[in-house]
Amino acid sequence: MSKKIDWMRKDLLGLEDLSKEEIDLILETAESFREVSERAVKKVPALRGKTVVNLFFEPSTRTRTSFELAAKRLSADVLNIAIQTSSVSKGETFKDTAKNIEAMKIDIIIMRHAASGAPHMLARSVKASVINAGDGSHEHPTQGLLDIFTMKQKKGKIKGLNVVIVGDITHSRVARSNIWGLVKLGAEVTVCGPKTLIPIDIEKLGIKISYSLKESIKTADVVNVLRIQHERQQGGLFPSIREYVNRFGINMEMLEEARKDLVIMHPGPINRGVELTPEVSDGPHSVILDQVTNGIAVRMAVLYLIAQRREKA
Amino acid sequence: MSKKIDWMRKDLLGLEDLSKEEIDLILETAESFREVSERAVKKVPALRGKTVVNLFFEPSTRTRTSFELAAKRLSADVLNIAIQTSSVSKGETFKDTAKNIEAMKIDIIIMRHAASGAPHMLARSVKASVINAGDGSHEHPTQGLLDIFTMKQKKGKIKGLNVVIVGDITHSRVARSNIWGLVKLGAEVTVCGPKTLIPIDIEKLGIKISYSLKESIKTADVVNVLRIQHERQQGGLFPSIREYVNRFGINMEMLEEARKDLVIMHPGPINRGVELTPEVSDGPHSVILDQVTNGIAVRMAVLYLIAQRREKA
Amino acid sequence: MSKKIDWMRKDLLGLEDLSKEEIDLILETAESFREVSERAVKKVPALRGKTVVNLFFEPSTRTRTSFELAAKRLSADVLNIAIQTSSVSKGETFKDTAKNIEAMKIDIIIMRHAASGAPHMLARSVKASVINAGDGSHEHPTQGLLDIFTMKQKKGKIKGLNVVIVGDITHSRVARSNIWGLVKLGAEVTVCGPKTLIPIDIEKLGIKISYSLKESIKTADVVNVLRIQHERQQGGLFPSIREYVNRFGINMEMLEEARKDLVIMHPGPINRGVELTPEVSDGPHSVILDQVTNGIAVRMAVLYLIAQRREKA
Repeated sequence: MSKKIDWMRKDLLGLEDLSKEEIDLILETAESFREVSERAVKKVPALRGKTVVNLFFEPSTRTRTSFELAAKRLSADVLNIAIQTSSVSKGETFKDTAKNIEAMKIDIIIMRHAASGAPHMLARSVKASVINAGDGSHEHPTQGLLDIFTMKQKKGKIKGLNVVIVGDITHSRVARSNIWGLVKLGAEVTVCGPKTLIPIDIEKLGIKISYSLKESIKTADVVNVLRIQHERQQGGLFPSIREYVNRFGINMEMLEEARKDLVIMHPGPINRGVELTPEVSDGPHSVILDQVTNGIAVRMAVLYLIAQRREKA
Repeated sequence: MSKKIDWMRKDLLGLEDLSKEEIDLILETAESFREVSERAVKKVPALRGKTVVNLFFEPSTRTRTSFELAAKRLSADVLNIAIQTSSVSKGETFKDTAKNIEAMKIDIIIMRHAASGAPHMLARSVKASVINAGDGSHEHPTQGLLDIFTMKQKKGKIKGLNVVIVGDITHSRVARSNIWGLVKLGAEVTVCGPKTLIPIDIEKLGIKISYSLKESIKTADVVNVLRIQHERQQGGLFPSIREYVNRFGINMEMLEEARKDLVIMHPGPINRGVELTPEVSDGPHSVILDQVTNGIAVRMAVLYLIAQRREKA
Repeated sequence: MSKKIDWMRKDLLGLEDLSKEEIDLILETAESFREVSERAVKKVPALRGKTVVNLFFEPSTRTRTSFELAAKRLSADVLNIAIQTSSVSKGETFKDTAKNIEAMKIDIIIMRHAASGAPHMLARSVKASVINAGDGSHEHPTQGLLDIFTMKQKKGKIKGLNVVIVGDITHSRVARSNIWGLVKLGAEVTVCGPKTLIPIDIEKLGIKISYSLKESIKTADVVNVLRIQHERQQGGLFPSIREYVNRFGINMEMLEEARKDLVIMHPGPINRGVELTPEVSDGPHSVILDQVTNGIAVRMAVLYLIAQRREKA
């Protein structure tokens, strides 16, 4: 068990900024929230009278829903603001939107935006706490945390774990948050994908590169499979889907060479038959639904720690 | 009063499946919830800490609103997921959506879908309870229940009641749920409409067919008027609106031949001047707004019985 | 302090109808709610078990959000109905929508509509209370109230205050509500804008007209700057944006001639560089964010007074 520390940050913007101790604190707090969603009465009063806003500039059902449930199970008041109905469409600048939300005495803003760094800009200009729910291809810290939480739950530890992240590494905020968190906690991380979709310098983060999933899967404890963004295919960097599936899709045959206790993860939603065959995504190696369940516990933990810190500040 | 039974079903998918006793139990429970919405404090703690999701694959204001209010007045946490923002648009399969919602530890999913049988499929694949809020032209059980509740409220009984259902019987889930429920409770049901819009075999359900509303209305205790779906007119089965109004629209003149205590119902929203003239829809025979009020009580009852059963299971 | 009166109205439709005493009562009640949003637990139980519906026939983020927060901080159950998902799109008449909402035992309907007088029509046909959240170019009473509340907060009084309202007076519901309220409370009001955008007879309301902001700003205590509706420019009444900015936009240079303690207001969202330069909107004269904060207190006060009155009625 890690040395007990207090959460001191106003915001959660990315795992790059966090220390090993801070990540451990979130994971331990999430552990204690996990059973709340199993109760008959799935509600604790921790955030009663706090206002949490979901400010989503990109459409999302699952992340928005997960945060909304986490906040409601903590008894917060939750407000959803989606880009479509936002006054951004009236030409208001991003900063004005932020300042206005601030003026409404919001405690925590959960923000998703297509531009990398947008939540950081928001965090600097408001007293409210900001949680990054995905910014461009930069970070998606609560996804990284729930992935790590799930690995720890299934494998009992992170240190020394052989984790392969497979897919379009260049454009993936999920990959980036996983890498930052896993490396800090001592995992051995390999990124795997077509050459055109792996950033040149990425080894500097303390990870390995592989261009063959067939090879990497043999020694993996965990394979975290990224979602293929079909809209990215236009750019020419992406091989044909057929070629991609052949080399980086996971089917039962490929699993024959893998460890019996290999854990397969995916942030969802799955493109069935692309990243994973249905037999694999519904099979015994898959922990995809545990990730969804753990997502709520991790988000409750983050909301709770941030709200606690605000109380003291 | 019916023999007291316990509610044993995980889901409410249609009135076809229910026994007379189960329908009676819902109606009696609804009776006791009716006064909650009349109180100054319209709230009871029965579903505190439960999570209810409105999962609507077809747009709806009134059914969604009625369920949302019912759930909130029972103190549940309510989440709205509409198709527009759902990850279905990202290519995720229906089943994956279901499994993901399940993983978020939802207690009750209220689902509307354009495909008949979709809620049944959902119910089989999740541990959460599923309430069918309308599936294709199959069933809309809570509408059927609120219609029956309103008939009983106005007429004191269902057994022996002469109920005429008029309109596009073939494509109406409201008609189907009414028929299943009313026949089980002993009403005399007649369906009435253009020949092209009445299924050939429908008499086998234990009901009569009429092609003349002018005739049927003379002996009716209740006329339940279906909504004309203008979008259906393309198919060629539907007569011109003018012809339809002439034969199946209800105006004051037609009411002269009806019983003085005839009750006129409509699930809403009304096409004014089509199914009913304004004088009729706002007149003394109409109980359309009572249906809306009773809808909340019936939905509270269904949510309550299902939640109670989950507690014990 | 004003003579204490009780709130007796079912609805809040406009400031034209209110007496000075009624406006004072709202402002004083808002004063006591202002600190609720500053607390760690931003919630009072005043409206527990009440149902409040946001019925918005025009898109709006900030007004809808402000009302939603106000209602939630009073512990009401809040339902959002936007035109896009409303059954109005199914051809239902406005009145039927209203009657249906009524039948759901809603306590308070907050309504925005493009047609002047729509909330008044609604108020006449339902027992629920109606709050006008903006009707056409007629009134936006809670905006008027929060503007007046903010002026009083900054200047200590309204009586004798020199208030200039600048912009498209003809089409502004914000202007109209400000004028009605300010005149009743004894302010000296001047409207200022291009000749084509000021109604001919408006002096009859007891206010002055100016066509030169450069002149009017010299003696102003408050300038309330209206938002330019770009969509209005088509009509030919509106000068070019460039010409408008030259004559009615506020920049630092123009402020040199103004009083040192001039207060600048704007209902938002600002067209930066049009009505105000960024230096002005973020500068020391601007109280725009205070308006947003005060908006919640004022709306809590209105909801509270109306709910209290319903209790007694």
